[in-house]
Parts: sequence; C-alpha cells; structure tokens
Amino acid sequence: MKLNGGLVSMEEEYVFAQAAQRARRFAAAHPDARLISLGIGDVQGPLCPAATRAMARAVREQGRRRSFHGYGPEQGYQFLRQAISSELTRRGAPVPARDIFISDGAKSDLGGLLDLIAPGGQALLCDPTYPAVRDDCLIRGLRVNTVAGSPSDGFLPMPPPGSLAPDVIYLCSPANPTGAVYTRAQLAAWVDYARQRESLLLFDAAYAPFIGDESLPRSIYEIPGAEECAVELGSFSKLAGFTGTRCGYTVLPAALCCRGVPLQALWRRRQAARFNGVAYVVQRGAAAVLGPNGRRQTERALAVYRANARLLESTLTEAGIPHWGGLHAPYLWLACPQGLSSWGFFDFLLEYGWLVGTPGVGFGPAGEGYFRLSAFGDPDTVELAAERFLHALDYLR
Amino acid sequence: MKLNGGLVSMEEEYVFAQAAQRARRFAAAHPDARLISLGIGDVQGPLCPAATRAMARAVREQGRRRSFHGYGPEQGYQFLRQAISSELTRRGAPVPARDIFISDGAKSDLGGLLDLIAPGGQALLCDPTYPAVRDDCLIRGLRVNTVAGSPSDGFLPMPPPGSLAPDVIYLCSPANPTGAVYTRAQLAAWVDYARQRESLLLFDAAYAPFIGDESLPRSIYEIPGAEECAVELGSFSKLAGFTGTRCGYTVLPAALCCRGVPLQALWRRRQAARFNGVAYVVQRGAAAVLGPNGRRQTERALAVYRANARLLESTLTEAGIPHWGGLHAPYLWLACPQGLSSWGFFDFLLEYGWLVGTPGVGFGPAGEGYFRLSAFGDPDTVELAAERFLHALDYLR
Repeated sequence: MKLNGGLVSMEEEYVFAQAAQRARRFAAAHPDARLISLGIGDVQGPLCPAATRAMARAVREQGRRRSFHGYGPEQGYQFLRQAISSELTRRGAPVPARDIFISDGAKSDLGGLLDLIAPGGQALLCDPTYPAVRDDCLIRGLRVNTVAGSPSDGFLPMPPPGSLAPDVIYLCSPANPTGAVYTRAQLAAWVDYARQRESLLLFDAAYAPFIGDESLPRSIYEIPGAEECAVELGSFSKLAGFTGTRCGYTVLPAALCCRGVPLQALWRRRQAARFNGVAYVVQRGAAAVLGPNGRRQTERALAVYRANARLLESTLTEAGIPHWGGLHAPYLWLACPQGLSSWGFFDFLLEYGWLVGTPGVGFGPAGEGYFRLSAFGDPDTVELAAERFLHALDYLR
Repeated sequence: MKLNGGLVSMEEEYVFAQAAQRARRFAAAHPDARLISLGIGDVQGPLCPAATRAMARAVREQGRRRSFHGYGPEQGYQFLRQAISSELTRRGAPVPARDIFISDGAKSDLGGLLDLIAPGGQALLCDPTYPAVRDDCLIRGLRVNTVAGSPSDGFLPMPPPGSLAPDVIYLCSPANPTGAVYTRAQLAAWVDYARQRESLLLFDAAYAPFIGDESLPRSIYEIPGAEECAVELGSFSKLAGFTGTRCGYTVLPAALCCRGVPLQALWRRRQAARFNGVAYVVQRGAAAVLGPNGRRQTERALAVYRANARLLESTLTEAGIPHWGGLHAPYLWLACPQGLSSWGFFDFLLEYGWLVGTPGVGFGPAGEGYFRLSAFGDPDTVELAAERFLHALDYLR
C-alpha cells in the first residue's frame, strides 16, 4: 500500500488542539486558575425553540411508519433548499433552489469540492486562513500557494500579480481568523481574477450572518459574474448554533462550467457516490431556523455575540492594541503587544489573565505576532474576560 | 481549472436512478399499473421507540443552555463508541472503543478511507459490487481491477492469482448485490492475501446483522491477523432503519500500520481536516439502538425482513430459477430466465408483473444476465410481489 504523501506531510495537530493541550497542562499545574476560553469558535447554544420544536416533530415522524423518511435526496429536501433560496434572495442574492446542495456542514463540502479538481493542480489561499483548507488541499494533492494579508491591507489580501493560474481559490469573508470583511469592489476584483484565470472560486460565507452593514456583501452572488466562477458555502453552525447538529449548504450555480462541462452535473455525480444526504430530523430543524419564529429567535442570539464582539473591540481600543474584525464578525484579530510572538502572547495571557485564545501563527506564517479572540461566549464571561485582559496587560508595561 | 478526469469519466447515472426513471416512464404510460418496488435497498422504517425516545430527549437537551452540545469529537462521542465496542465484543469480535470512529454512514467513510492511499494506486473490487465503490476509486484516481464472481463460486470471488499487489481491496459480506456470505476459511484466505501484498482491506459489514448462522463470520476481526490489514465499516442503516438518519462507524485498529506509520493517526488527521462529527441527537439515537430495549425492538424489525427474504427465496425455488443470497442477507440475486439480459428482465418484470427490481449489470459486467431483488418491504407487499412474480413468469413459457 502506498500512502497519500499529502496526508502524511500534514501537521500533526491543529492549532486548536495544541492550544487546548497547553491550557490543560496549565490548569493541571494551577488548580486554582479558573480559565476562560476565547479560543475555539464554538457557540454556547442552545438551539432556538423553533428548531427544537421542528426537530421533535420530525423525530415523532420517524417513529411512525406512515410518516417515516428513509434515504432522502443526496442534494437535500426541497423544503430546505427552497427555504435557503428564499433567504438568500431576501438578502439580495437570488439563487434558485436547484443550485443549492445541503451538506452536513461547510467543512465537509469545502474538502469535497476539491474532488472536482485534478490532483497536482494549484490552489491559492489567503494567509492567515482556516487551517483545514490547507489540509484539504494537501489531502487532495494540490499545490498550495498563498497570498499574505497584513496591516497595510487590513488583512484583506487581493489577487497576486504574476502568472499563477490557480485551479481553485479559497476566500472567507467575514474572514476566519481575522474577522475582516471584503467590500463589493474588492470581491469584484477577485471575481475578475478568477474568471480571467479560469479558477474555481470557493467563497466561504459561514460568518455572513454577522454582517450588520448593508453596504458590505454577504454573498459572492451580489457580484456580477460570480455565478460563472464561484461556489458559495453557507452554514447553520454560527447562525443558529448548529455546531453539534451539523447542517450547511453549498451553492453551485447551473451557469458554472469548465470548458463546457457544467460543474453542477459533476458535483451531483460526486455526491451520489460519496454521500447519502443529511438526517431528515436535522434538515427539519434547519428549515425552521429560516421561518419567521426561527429568524427572530436566531437574531436575538446573534445580537448577544455581536455585543460580545463590540465589548472585546472597545477593550482592545482602550488598551491601544491594533486590531481588526469584531464589527461584522465573531472574531477579533490583534497584534501581540510588545512584539511578542503568537505563542508567547498565548502563554502570557494564560498565565497572567487565565485566558485561552488562539495563536495567529496557527493560521499560517503571516499570522505570526498576531492573536485571535472569539466572541462566542455568554456576556458575563466575556465581560470578565475583557477585565482580565486589561488587567493582564499591566504586567507587560 | 483542470477537472478531475476520474470524476468526468464516471457513468452519468447510477443503476438505481436509471431504473427509477424507466419505472416512472412506465407508470406514466400505464396509469392503472400499481407498481411494487423490490429495487433500491431502503428500509420501511419506522425508527424503534428506544431510538426516537433517546433522540427526543437529546433534542430537548439541545434546547437548553446547560445541556447543550456544540462541536462534538470528530471521532464520535465516547458513549456511542463504547456501545459499539460492547456490541462487537458480544458478537465475538472484541474491538476497543478507541479503534471505533463514528461516521454519518458507511458510504461517507468508504470514499473517505481512500484518502489514505496515494493517487494512481491499484484497487481490487469484486464484480458485481456496490457501484459507489467503483466511483469512489475513480474520484480518488485509483486504477480499478476486478475479480469476477460466478455461479461456480457462488458469487464469492477469491483472491486472484498473478502479481497484482493492490493498494486497497474492497469486500462486502453479506454482499450487495448478491447476498452471498463468505465463510471464515474464505475470509482467512483474503486476509492472508492482503497481508502478503500489503494491501488495505476494506470490509463492508453493513449487512452483518442479517446473518443468522453462528458459523458465518459477522466481522472481519473474527479472522486472526485481520487487525493488521483490515478496516471494517458498519452501519445503523439496515440494522435499525437509519437510512434517513445517517449513522455508521469505521473500525480502524491501532495495530494497522503501513511501513511503520499507524493508519489510525493518519485517519484522525484526515477526519480532523474533513469532518466535524455526527449530530449529537443522531448519536444518542444510535446508542439507544444498542441498548437492551433497542436491541429487542430492532431484532423484531429484522425478523420481518428475514421472513420477506425467505419468502422471495422460496418463490424463486418454486419457479426453478437459480438464485443466491436471501438466507443471511436482505438481497436475492437471480439468473434471468430464458437467457434474458438484466435490462431485458427488468422491462419484462415491469410490464408483466408491475414489479421494479435492479438489473444485475448495474453492479458490474459480471452481473449481466442477473437481477437483484430486495427484501425491504412490508410483508403484505412482498407477498403480493411474490405472487405477481410467479404469475409474470407464466408469460415467459
């Protein structure tokens, strides 16, 4: 058996796992320390009542022969595809239901979509970026090129000059880890670039529900021409606390072709071989999130995370620490003070603030010297964390 | 963008989709015909009360902050891994919980496990076989070799002579589509072959719960040495009607290495990048299936399918049609009478019996001239189908 070299070459551990391990070690050595995590981007829940009611009903249906659902369509049930289509249209990006494919989370399809590309192809990623994407490329045997973000571009890298014609480009806006959001003009430049180079543009919109400013694009399909080059990934994870319930979706427009081959047909074929759809019960829950009650309830939960993010943002401003994100995203990205490295600041915050964050370098080399804070937490805890953060900084001065 | 040639080369449609389309066309032209499907291997449900009760409880937990579950472990919750470990041990194949990885169905991991193998490698499949596996290999860029089954080996192909050293071998027992079951001696020969050639043996045990005869192996780990070469895939789909609820598992033993590299570590890495686990609610349902109530209730449902299979089996015997499977499997595999082709017999049964089955040729060239019947149905319908089957045959004589 010859092993997949790309998989063998991957880093042993995710940054999140490493951070958790260091925090555990610290906690074991300091039993009095009550750590607060502003680390991994998990929600606090709970699922909204509209979702749990719909799921409870669906569980009852599954318990009766007459209303039982066996294998569902791989692409997802029409009721959910239609609900997502209406939601995207409401937000200003009309997408027909037939272009929407239900997934068990954006992470699954992010990797799965690379199956469309021939091994040995070129991928273009931003640096820093969500580390799973880099790993997905290595598993698929793609060569990884990066374009680095920096304070000068607000951590919103633009298409690189040069002759590279990437087979696939990955963008995330609002971005993980920086929380930065591309403007329409910036996304239009990326769409132009993708079309000129005949690249497949994977647009990760998992954090789009956090955008409060109408002038910022929440979908790539607000950009003319995107339907000819871009796939968009959406998620119920952050929108509605579905991190442990698992539902997302992929928009793959019918107009998206590669030398005359419609990618939608290839994706259907890929999914038919590799996937059997998402649990009926889960799809009922997701559809309820997009109903009138669900939307109202979800909006309330999002408002809490937005307020948390604003609090962290004003804390960083107060501390005079350069930072990005947090306005339209659940993440804040900060420059480590006093020239500390990412892991140096991680250890410092752990020791002096009993706080766990995520070292920026875990998202790519351009993240060295930076640090991510997550705003998923209950307000009291985040407020306490903000106090501790400021207090800890006193030890640096 | 350069497309994945393997994906492009795949057949346009699954045999099941083609069969469904022909049936729809017939039904449209014959509005009086009340078709019965003995085609696709979907269960009739419902989920057992133990499962729906556990799922309803889990939905309530997800609706309260204190009992909410966000991201779970990618490998699955310990409560389910432990329950599966106990079940496998009870059945005579002791597997520790740490070797068990929860999936959203065997289909997902069947394809995913090929990520362990370098593209360009060699796969060895039986012919006929479950068509998704062939497609998985093409998507992954593996070269597909087959070993054909025939009446002379009871459609249980044995390792081929010759110098082929496959990177990966796929076996399914009880087999889809033939329902044939390997003996211990036969599986031992496959394990020997895999170890000699350093092949990864993927053993699909999705239909193992149908085995009634204690002398037949229900797990590859009943064979000494299998833990050094074999991965086993299990499923709650047929066992407990989870086709629309999505839960399965993969056993990847700690002892399984390739030139010193433990595959378990690689698989963890692959899953961490590509997967975020199975819904908490679904895992609770699956665990309840393996509890005392769940097992009793599930056994009752399986007994119905077993009785259906026996009825179909005796029908074929009565008709004097050579057939395989059906004793320890939900599938019957029959030789098309009068030398009809697979699709010829499909059309004949549709027209003269208003019955929908699955043409054997859809599972590979060695399936030409054969036909699959599925025993998933309610007993009255299957009884009616059996009558119609015999009646239709009169038109052939």
